[in-house]
Amino acid sequence: MSSYSNYTNSPCAACKFLRRKCISDCVFAPYFPPEEPTKFANVHRIFGASNVSKILHEVAPHQREDAVNSLAYEAEARLKDPVYGCVGAISVLQRQVLRLQRELEETNADLMRYASCLGGETMSAYGGRRG
Amino acid sequence: MSSYSNYTNSPCAACKFLRRKCISDCVFAPYFPPEEPTKFANVHRIFGASNVSKILHEVAPHQREDAVNSLAYEAEARLKDPVYGCVGAISVLQRQVLRLQRELEETNADLMRYASCLGGETMSAYGGRRG
Repeated sequence: MSSYSNYTNSPCAACKFLRRKCISDCVFAPYFPPEEPTKFANVHRIFGASNVSKILHEVAPHQREDAVNSLAYEAEARLKDPVYGCVGAISVLQRQVLRLQRELEETNADLMRYASCLGGETMSAYGGRRG
Repeated sequence: MSSYSNYTNSPCAACKFLRRKCISDCVFAPYFPPEEPTKFANVHRIFGASNVSKILHEVAPHQREDAVNSLAYEAEARLKDPVYGCVGAISVLQRQVLRLQRELEETNADLMRYASCLGGETMSAYGGRRG
């Protein structure tokens, strides 16, 4: 949960951005504190305040902070890279996983060759790893 | 580029969804063909038609298909998982990369131990792999 609480007189970053009164049960207030104005500006620019509000109402209260943080991450990624957004990061990671799996397979094959050079006597002590 | 072209009489999926006339230079038409109505419905639900249109105008024409496909991927992921969206896939992949890197390091260490058992004579033929 964010450090924001309604005893402060400042409207939350969302209400300030949208120039509206920040009511006591404002759905944005716990996740968009006034000291982080860019977080709301970003998600508003990419998803729109109304869609963010819809998502917040769709998820359980204890999951809202995670939902806001993942939306803020996606929004920032899309602003940095309008073509691929955070899907670009997924592609990079998928390629990295494939490369590591291939390297691990090759290293395991090397390990097997070494083991056969040693007559396989100590193979059970090491074993091959499989990704 | 999508197979959609304006010689068809059907409005694109976006204009049909938004109940508006599909003009000849409609920014959505090449990427939201009428036979794929869900693709537009999803991006509209998560990003809003106006934000999608803004992003399309921001990127170069040759990058628009990639932009639409990444938006459609993100929208589908967010509809499936409203809390984490495609950021959930990023977390899973990041953990997989860390696990594979650790396994590769351990396998390389095993390889080094085997090499020292063999007196290091043939080590240069194998070498250690580093993730």
